[in-house]
Amino acid sequence: MKAIIVYPPKAGVWLKEIDFKEKVGSNGVLVRTLENGMCGTDRGIVNGTLTFSRPPDGYDFLVLGHETLGIVEEVGDAVNEFKKGDIVVPIVRRGCNSCFNCIIGRQDYCETGKFREIGIRGLHGTMREYFTDNEENLVKIPSGLRHVGVLLEPLSNIMKTFEEIELMQRRMIWNCNDSSYECRNAAILGSGPIGLLFALMSASKGFEVFVMNKREPFEAELKVVEAIGAKFIDTTKDELGEIDLLIDTTGYPSAFIPLLKKIKNNGVLVLFGTASGDQYNLSTEDVNHIVESNIAIIGAVNASKKNFIEGAEYLNSWNSKYPGVLESMITKKLKPEDSVEYLKNKPKGEIKTIITW
Amino acid sequence: MKAIIVYPPKAGVWLKEIDFKEKVGSNGVLVRTLENGMCGTDRGIVNGTLTFSRPPDGYDFLVLGHETLGIVEEVGDAVNEFKKGDIVVPIVRRGCNSCFNCIIGRQDYCETGKFREIGIRGLHGTMREYFTDNEENLVKIPSGLRHVGVLLEPLSNIMKTFEEIELMQRRMIWNCNDSSYECRNAAILGSGPIGLLFALMSASKGFEVFVMNKREPFEAELKVVEAIGAKFIDTTKDELGEIDLLIDTTGYPSAFIPLLKKIKNNGVLVLFGTASGDQYNLSTEDVNHIVESNIAIIGAVNASKKNFIEGAEYLNSWNSKYPGVLESMITKKLKPEDSVEYLKNKPKGEIKTIITW
Amino acid sequence: MKAIIVYPPKAGVWLKEIDFKEKVGSNGVLVRTLENGMCGTDRGIVNGTLTFSRPPDGYDFLVLGHETLGIVEEVGDAVNEFKKGDIVVPIVRRGCNSCFNCIIGRQDYCETGKFREIGIRGLHGTMREYFTDNEENLVKIPSGLRHVGVLLEPLSNIMKTFEEIELMQRRMIWNCNDSSYECRNAAILGSGPIGLLFALMSASKGFEVFVMNKREPFEAELKVVEAIGAKFIDTTKDELGEIDLLIDTTGYPSAFIPLLKKIKNNGVLVLFGTASGDQYNLSTEDVNHIVESNIAIIGAVNASKKNFIEGAEYLNSWNSKYPGVLESMITKKLKPEDSVEYLKNKPKGEIKTIITW
Amino acid sequence: MKAIIVYPPKAGVWLKEIDFKEKVGSNGVLVRTLENGMCGTDRGIVNGTLTFSRPPDGYDFLVLGHETLGIVEEVGDAVNEFKKGDIVVPIVRRGCNSCFNCIIGRQDYCETGKFREIGIRGLHGTMREYFTDNEENLVKIPSGLRHVGVLLEPLSNIMKTFEEIELMQRRMIWNCNDSSYECRNAAILGSGPIGLLFALMSASKGFEVFVMNKREPFEAELKVVEAIGAKFIDTTKDELGEIDLLIDTTGYPSAFIPLLKKIKNNGVLVLFGTASGDQYNLSTEDVNHIVESNIAIIGAVNASKKNFIEGAEYLNSWNSKYPGVLESMITKKLKPEDSVEYLKNKPKGEIKTIITW
Repeated sequence: MKAIIVYPPKAGVWLKEIDFKEKVGSNGVLVRTLENGMCGTDRGIVNGTLTFSRPPDGYDFLVLGHETLGIVEEVGDAVNEFKKGDIVVPIVRRGCNSCFNCIIGRQDYCETGKFREIGIRGLHGTMREYFTDNEENLVKIPSGLRHVGVLLEPLSNIMKTFEEIELMQRRMIWNCNDSSYECRNAAILGSGPIGLLFALMSASKGFEVFVMNKREPFEAELKVVEAIGAKFIDTTKDELGEIDLLIDTTGYPSAFIPLLKKIKNNGVLVLFGTASGDQYNLSTEDVNHIVESNIAIIGAVNASKKNFIEGAEYLNSWNSKYPGVLESMITKKLKPEDSVEYLKNKPKGEIKTIITW
Repeated sequence: MKAIIVYPPKAGVWLKEIDFKEKVGSNGVLVRTLENGMCGTDRGIVNGTLTFSRPPDGYDFLVLGHETLGIVEEVGDAVNEFKKGDIVVPIVRRGCNSCFNCIIGRQDYCETGKFREIGIRGLHGTMREYFTDNEENLVKIPSGLRHVGVLLEPLSNIMKTFEEIELMQRRMIWNCNDSSYECRNAAILGSGPIGLLFALMSASKGFEVFVMNKREPFEAELKVVEAIGAKFIDTTKDELGEIDLLIDTTGYPSAFIPLLKKIKNNGVLVLFGTASGDQYNLSTEDVNHIVESNIAIIGAVNASKKNFIEGAEYLNSWNSKYPGVLESMITKKLKPEDSVEYLKNKPKGEIKTIITW
Repeated sequence: MKAIIVYPPKAGVWLKEIDFKEKVGSNGVLVRTLENGMCGTDRGIVNGTLTFSRPPDGYDFLVLGHETLGIVEEVGDAVNEFKKGDIVVPIVRRGCNSCFNCIIGRQDYCETGKFREIGIRGLHGTMREYFTDNEENLVKIPSGLRHVGVLLEPLSNIMKTFEEIELMQRRMIWNCNDSSYECRNAAILGSGPIGLLFALMSASKGFEVFVMNKREPFEAELKVVEAIGAKFIDTTKDELGEIDLLIDTTGYPSAFIPLLKKIKNNGVLVLFGTASGDQYNLSTEDVNHIVESNIAIIGAVNASKKNFIEGAEYLNSWNSKYPGVLESMITKKLKPEDSVEYLKNKPKGEIKTIITW
Repeated sequence: MKAIIVYPPKAGVWLKEIDFKEKVGSNGVLVRTLENGMCGTDRGIVNGTLTFSRPPDGYDFLVLGHETLGIVEEVGDAVNEFKKGDIVVPIVRRGCNSCFNCIIGRQDYCETGKFREIGIRGLHGTMREYFTDNEENLVKIPSGLRHVGVLLEPLSNIMKTFEEIELMQRRMIWNCNDSSYECRNAAILGSGPIGLLFALMSASKGFEVFVMNKREPFEAELKVVEAIGAKFIDTTKDELGEIDLLIDTTGYPSAFIPLLKKIKNNGVLVLFGTASGDQYNLSTEDVNHIVESNIAIIGAVNASKKNFIEGAEYLNSWNSKYPGVLESMITKKLKPEDSVEYLKNKPKGEIKTIITW
C-alpha cells in the first residue's frame, strides 16, 4: 500500500509503496484511512527538528501520521464494540505499561517517558491506506462527523487541558454568580487549528473569547472566530485588557511573558505550544505578580481516550450548532501524492491541511 | 393571555385567561412559550400531594410549568446575550440570596431552603403564552434543538448528578484501563423521561447501560433503549448481575434496597426519584455491605445554569447522533386546552407529554 | 513464642506457644510487639460471627490482632527507613496486586475483594511476641506516642473517612464564612473508641461535636468528651437539633434511620459501623429528604498508609494538647494470659482494652 | 502603649508611644502581644521597597507586625470561643467583602485586591503591647505552643500551598505504591524560615527533602535540616538530580529557571517568594519541557483560617516530635527597643528573629 514515510531523526519525507500485511488479531480492527491531518509535530519530524522522533523497533523508517479519520473494514473475533463501516479515530499515545498513569489509561501523564506514539515515536502512524489497531485504542464517532472527525485528535488535547483547568480552579470560587464562566474571558495566543479549537471549547464553556496573533486574521480564521462570537486581536495594533485564562499555543516566551501581568487574580496560564529559537526575560516583577495573584501555570500535552470520547460529543454538537464552521477550518484537502510538499511547509493562510486517501 | 393555573396546596388545574402585563426591564427578556414538558412534579402539584408548592406572594394561584422551550420576542436595553428569535430555556430554581451556594449561582445546593422555583414554589411558571425573565436565568440553545429542547430542563438534573458522581469517584481509581468507563455498567431503575435521559448520558460516558422496570417495555421506551445500545430489564423476569452505578428514579425503597447488595466495591447509588407510600426494611446486612464495599449514596436534586449549558451540548450532539430518538421520547403533543386532563394522570405508555402553545 | 490464636470461622480463642521462626528478609523488619488493641472485629472472629475471617494458606489457625504498637528489633540489609528502637505500627490490609487501587497503595478501596488483612483474613496478626513485616507496611511514629500509639490503627480509618467527606463536600460550599467548619456540627452515634476518635478528629476540624448513645455516659467516655469541648447526648433523654455531619459507628439501621430527617441540606451521613441483628424501615419520606436535601451517604472501611501517616501527626498533637486524654481512652491493660476472656466479651464501661506484651 | 510604627510608603521604622484605647466590642477580644516575628515583608515596608504598604484610613502611620503570638486579656459579651489566658494567633488578611472568595472566608484568593492586611495594608499590625480583634479573626492554639506559636502565621502559608499542590496533583496518580509520597522528593530553594517550614511540612508528608542555598548552611539551619532527616545542598558545590516538587522561596528567576529542566514528568514548581532586581531568560527549551512534562507552576500567597487551624496541629505535633527544633529556628529574641535595627537588616546566620513584649 501507499504510505508517507520519514527516516527520523533525519529530515525528509516520501510517499512510497510499503509492503505491510495488516493482520487482524482477535482484538484487532482493520481500518481504511479516510483522512489525515497535518500538524506542527508532523512538520517538525519532516524537517528534522523534533529529534525525539524515531522509527519502530526493527524498522529504519516511520510511517508518519497521528491525526486520523478511518472506517472499519474488518474486525477480529473478540471485537464487540466495532463493526464494518464504523467511523473511528485512533488515540495517539500508547502507555509504557509500567507507571501508574499508563496502567490506568492515562498515558498522557506517563511518568517514565517510555510511551510510544503512532507516527511520532516508535510506532507507525496512519498516513497510509490501511492500518490495524486493537479495539481499545479506537474511538467510534458518529457518522455525521465523517467530514470533520479528523479534528478530533487535536481537540482531544484541548479536552484534557480543560479537565486540568477545571480541577485546578476548584482551589477557590472561579465561576460567575450564575455558576457559569460567562463573566470570564479566555485569551488565546495563536490562531492555528489548536488555537481555534481552544476558542471553540472556551466559547462552549461560556468564556468571552479572544484569539490573538501578531497580524491581521486570515479570512478562514475570521470566519471561525466570528461564527462563535469571539474576537480576533491583532497584537500589533490592539491591546487586551485583563485576562482570566491565557492559553499559549505558540511556545514562544516572547509572546506570553509580556502578557503575564495582565492575568488577573486566580487566573491561569496554559502552556500548550512548543517551539524553538525564542527566549524572553522573566523578571522578579513577573514572579511577584504570579505569586501575589495566585496564578497557576499548566503545561499540558496529549490526551487520554476519555478526552477523545468527550471531545467527540462536543465536535458533534458544534458540527450541528455552527453549520459549515468546522469544515471551514479544513482549508485544504490534498491527495497523498500532493501532500509531501505541504508536509515540509505550512502555506500561508491555511488552518488545517488534510490528506484524503 | 392563556395560562395553566393551580391553587396549591389544593388539588386541581385550570386553563384560564390571566391578565398579566409582562414588562421587559433593562435586563429582562420577553419570551413566547413554544413548549412545556409535563413531569411528576407538575402532577404532584395538580393532585395536591406536593404540599410544598405555593403561589407567589400576593397571588392565590400559581401558573404551573418549569420544563420550558421558548423563543425570544423582545429584550431590554442592557441585554447583550440574547436577541429576538433566539431559542431559550429558563432555569427553574432561583436562589435565596443569603447562603453561599445561592450567592455563587449554585442554588441547586441552597442551604436555607428559602429558594423559589418557577411553576413550583413562589414564582409563576411558564405554562402560559408569554413570560419575562432576567437574562441571567435564560440559557440559549441552538436553533437545531427547536423540536427537542424542551428536554433540556430534565437533562440538566442528570448533568448535575454526573458532576457529583465524578467528583465523588475521584476518591479512588474508578476508570477503566483505557481511562474510559467502558468496563463499568449503569443500572437505571425506572424508564420514564428521567430514567431514559440518565441512560443516554450514561451511554455517552461509556457505561454499559441497563434500564429497569417491573414490566415489559413500552414500544417508545424500547426504541430509545435500543438506539443507544442499552438493554431493557423487566425485573419480573430477568435479574441483573453486579452493578457499578445504580440510579434510582422511582423513589421507592422497595425498588432499590433489594438491589443494594449487587452494588460492587466502590460503587455508587444515586437517589434521584421522590415518591410516597412505600417503605422497605434496611438491614444490618445491607449496612455492612455499604460499609465494607465503600459504597457512596448520593441524593441529587435540581441543577445549576452550568449544568444547562453543558446539557445543551450533549442534547445537541445526541440529536445529531441518534436521529429521531430524542423526538421519539416526546410521545404526545397537546394543545393547552387538551392538556388539563393529562396533567392529572400520566397515560400508560407515554414517555414525555408536552404542551405546544 | 506466645500468640493469641483462633480457628476461624469457628468460635474460640487461645493463648498458645507457636513455633514461628521470624526470618528478616532484605526489606524485612523484625518487630517486638508492645501492645495490641482489641476491637469489635477481634471479638466477631472470636465469637464466630465474622464469617469472612480465615487463616493464612497452609495454616489451620490464625494469629489474631490488627491494632498494634511495636518496637523494631532488627532490620534487613536494604531497609533505610527504620532502625532498631523505632516505634512502629503496621498497616492492616494488604492489596490484591491486581486491581488499580491495590496497585497504587489504596487497598482500602480494593475492587476485587481479594485483599488480605493481618489478624483477620489470610495473614497472621500481631497478637504475639514478635512479628516480621516488609518496611513498606510499617509506619514509624514518634517515641512520644509510646503509650497511646496503639490507637493509630483505629484512627487511620477516621482519617480515610474525613478524606472522603472533604472530597465529597467540594461539590458545593460547605465551609463557614471564615473558611473553617466552626459553624457546622458533627453528631456521632456510638461512644466506643471509634466514636471517640471521630469526636477528636471532628473537634480538630472545628466542628461542634455531639457524642450520642442510648444511655448515660461512662465516666471514661465523659472525660474524653469534656476534654475536647464536645457534648454527650443520652438519646433516651435528650434530642438533637439539626445535624450537618452524622457519623454512625453502631451499624444499626434503627439508630441512624430515625435521625435521617435531622440532616440538613448538603449534609453527610457516614456509615462506618457494622453489626448484625437489626433492621429498620426506610420510607419514601426518608428518601425524599435525602434527595431534596442533596444528602450524601458514605460507607467507609479501612485506610491507606497515607492515612496512618497523617493520623500519627494528629495523634501526636492531641497527645500534647489534651494531656492524659488519649491515655484515658485505654481503660484496661491486660497481660496476654488474662486477655482471652476479654476477647470474648467487652466489659461494661470500657473504652479500649489493650494487651501489653 | 509602645508600638513599632512605619510611614509607608516612606522608609523608616520607629518605636513610639501611641495613644490607642483598645475597646472590646461584644464580639471583640483584647489580646496582649507576647511575641512578633520579623519577616521579609516587614523589612520591605521598613526599607520602602514594598510600595503597596499603606496606613489605615485616617492615619499617617501604620503599626507594623503580622506574625503574632498573643494571650487573651479580655473578651466581649458575645464571645464564646475564647477566654482570658488563651494563647491566640490572628489571621493576617481581611476580606474585601465583595468577591466570592472573601465572602466564604478565602480572602487569600481575593479577586478584587481590595483586601486589607494587618501590619501591611490598611490595618494596624500587632507590634504593640495590646491589640483588639474580632473573635472570627483569631485562632486558639494549645498552651504547649507558647514558645513556638509565633511560627504559625508563616506556617499557615505553607499549609495553603500544600492544599493547592494536593488538589492539582489529583489530575493523575502522583502518590507512591504505598499511597504515601515516600518515593517523591521536594527541593526547596532558600533556607530561611519559609524554606525550613516547607521542609518540615514536606517531611511530614513523606517527601525526601532537600534544602538548597548558594552557600554553606548556617549552623542553625543545619540543625533543623538534620533533625527532620533532610539534606542541605550548597548549590555552588553540589547538584541535585531530578526533582518532583520544586519550591522557590527566593523569588529569583535566576534561581529556579535553571532548575526547570530537572523537574520530572507531572512535577510541580511552587513560586512562593517575592523579590526584586533579578531576571533570567526563559527559553523555548524550558517551555517545551514544561509542556511535554505536564508540569504545573503554582504562585501561592497568604492563607485562610482553615490553614491556620490545620497548621496548629502540625506545629503542635512537630513541637513534640522534634524536641527543641522549632525553638532553634527562633535564633534571636529582642526587646522592642532593640528591634528597630533588626527590622532594617536581617543579620547573617539568623533564621527567625522575634520581638518579645
